[in-house]
Amino acid sequence: MKNVYIYLLAFASCLPVAYAQNKKVIYHELPVYGKLFDTPSKYHRVDTLKYNDLPVRVKHLFTNSAGLFVAFRSNSASIHAKWCVTDAKASSNLTSIAQKGLDVYIKNADGEWQYAGSKGTAKTCDEGVLVDNLDQTSKEFLVYLPLYDETKSLEIGIEEGANFLALSNPFQRNIAVYGSSIVQGASAGRPGMAYTAILSRRTGLNFINLGVSGSAKMEQEVAHMLAAGKPDVFILDCVPNSLPEIVSERTHYFVQHLRANHPNTPIIMIPSVVRELSYFNQVWNKRNADQNAQFKKEYETLLAKGIKHLYYLDSNTLLGTDHEGTTDGTHPNDLGFMRMADQIQPFVIKVMQKHNLL
Amino acid sequence: MKNVYIYLLAFASCLPVAYAQNKKVIYHELPVYGKLFDTPSKYHRVDTLKYNDLPVRVKHLFTNSAGLFVAFRSNSASIHAKWCVTDAKASSNLTSIAQKGLDVYIKNADGEWQYAGSKGTAKTCDEGVLVDNLDQTSKEFLVYLPLYDETKSLEIGIEEGANFLALSNPFQRNIAVYGSSIVQGASAGRPGMAYTAILSRRTGLNFINLGVSGSAKMEQEVAHMLAAGKPDVFILDCVPNSLPEIVSERTHYFVQHLRANHPNTPIIMIPSVVRELSYFNQVWNKRNADQNAQFKKEYETLLAKGIKHLYYLDSNTLLGTDHEGTTDGTHPNDLGFMRMADQIQPFVIKVMQKHNLL
Repeated sequence: MKNVYIYLLAFASCLPVAYAQNKKVIYHELPVYGKLFDTPSKYHRVDTLKYNDLPVRVKHLFTNSAGLFVAFRSNSASIHAKWCVTDAKASSNLTSIAQKGLDVYIKNADGEWQYAGSKGTAKTCDEGVLVDNLDQTSKEFLVYLPLYDETKSLEIGIEEGANFLALSNPFQRNIAVYGSSIVQGASAGRPGMAYTAILSRRTGLNFINLGVSGSAKMEQEVAHMLAAGKPDVFILDCVPNSLPEIVSERTHYFVQHLRANHPNTPIIMIPSVVRELSYFNQVWNKRNADQNAQFKKEYETLLAKGIKHLYYLDSNTLLGTDHEGTTDGTHPNDLGFMRMADQIQPFVIKVMQKHNLL
Repeated sequence: MKNVYIYLLAFASCLPVAYAQNKKVIYHELPVYGKLFDTPSKYHRVDTLKYNDLPVRVKHLFTNSAGLFVAFRSNSASIHAKWCVTDAKASSNLTSIAQKGLDVYIKNADGEWQYAGSKGTAKTCDEGVLVDNLDQTSKEFLVYLPLYDETKSLEIGIEEGANFLALSNPFQRNIAVYGSSIVQGASAGRPGMAYTAILSRRTGLNFINLGVSGSAKMEQEVAHMLAAGKPDVFILDCVPNSLPEIVSERTHYFVQHLRANHPNTPIIMIPSVVRELSYFNQVWNKRNADQNAQFKKEYETLLAKGIKHLYYLDSNTLLGTDHEGTTDGTHPNDLGFMRMADQIQPFVIKVMQKHNLL
């Protein structure tokens, strides 16, 4: 199912209009993108009633809006938002922009998604200006939703009299990325810096964020849920949360179940980043190495058993080599995420080209 | 006044010792480095009683511990901290690690300062492990203090029986960096990612953080305070907070006062980063351009008047060119700070070499 890049409605002409400050703001709800499945709860990533046997913590995390976004076109001189999240406490390794806030990108003259502004909040419901003092040409906007909270509602506001048009998902194909807090986006400084979001903007492909914080433990129920989707590629970046023996125990079933249900879909395995704290913390050093050794071993066993279209991104420098790529020794900062994207992007593109998916 | 890299006390031999978990932790106070002046309040950057005529907001901000750090040697298997800050609210563009937390670096086998761990807090007083499960060799540690709060107290804990030795400031020379929130470190993910801290670790030079959030407005009283110091280099990265007309009005006096009191000290002027929001926000676009145009014009006027040893880092790509280098459109994320450091470092080194300061 390709997301074809069309306008959902015929677009009215974009006449330049003079805007007064403090002009009345008109709010709109929009369809939400970035999901593997349609969900009855608009801002959830997975239907947690349908997949009721998922572990409780995993279900909870799939209610977080990581990777979700809305897209629209407008010539409004300012873009506003009203949105609600929960009263979940702030995490020490996240800004409130990343955890509970919104991030705006605009398609620039080169056709690239360019960062334009953000708004965080310490409240459960907030409203305000996202970007302001824009020229009055018609523009395409992306607004990313909070990474680490459940979005309860979102309305996008434009100035009265401006054009407004919901857009379809600008990203093509579907690449399901199952993983840990790193996939979910800790510790990006803002929602658009999760590596899945960076990759989508750069490639035009829909990297779907299925990160579940500390709970990416490859349970069978998660494999069943993922296998019910129909992505073009699966990416498994789910090593960091499991002890080495759990990686060893669960990887085989997980991959085989996806393969059994999707005989020709490429599956890309990504080892854990080398946690920066592991260079000095000897316990983490061993665990980190053992986790990745087990994951690689399972990959080789699966290959030996004849599992096709399986790929392993064999890198221990996903965060770079200067040791500055994390916020807390585990979670990439925006520097670390950029470096991850720099390594993951060509690997995924090559796999997709090989499979005639590009 | 060079900070010679000597141990303050003779160092006892570093015998490997077996450490039990939950071993008793012994706490120590340490001298605080990263200041242009000695201060009666240990965790303040400036003596705000002595410089009582500074603007109230500037005085307040100099009580924030941005850029301050402690240094010690130990063979403890874990490093702990007890510290207190104020009840100031969290900023939406900062993690609590950056705002109120601590950041640990260890000198590695190559003699480089390597990141090892962090701890943030939402409390006014907290205590806990900073790094853990270390091998039992003797190591040198740096611990950075909170960027955006007043540190009220700090004690560093080591396991009972381990060696502990306060170190002198490992960084040589003094480079006084006066500036805005960007100098103070918003929006680094953690204290060690403020660009002054990155530059100190990379060069071994003491880049002193005199960032004052939104209040770097080049008041005469600030010039007088700075001129009372005796750094080897002055860096003025103080454009972002002032309207263009204020930049125009105040730069000349500010630079001339430093020059009059320090005839041979290099003064480096750094324009405002191009705020990412300014690419779409037309008001900011004009203001940002006008601020920098005025700063450059003042530089040229000062040169024409015969002011010597004055340098201008003429760049409009301090944050890079992909527009991803900020957390909120204004404040660099760790990606942006790394890019700033990459451009500022060679410029400063060249100036210092020219002046036989290296």
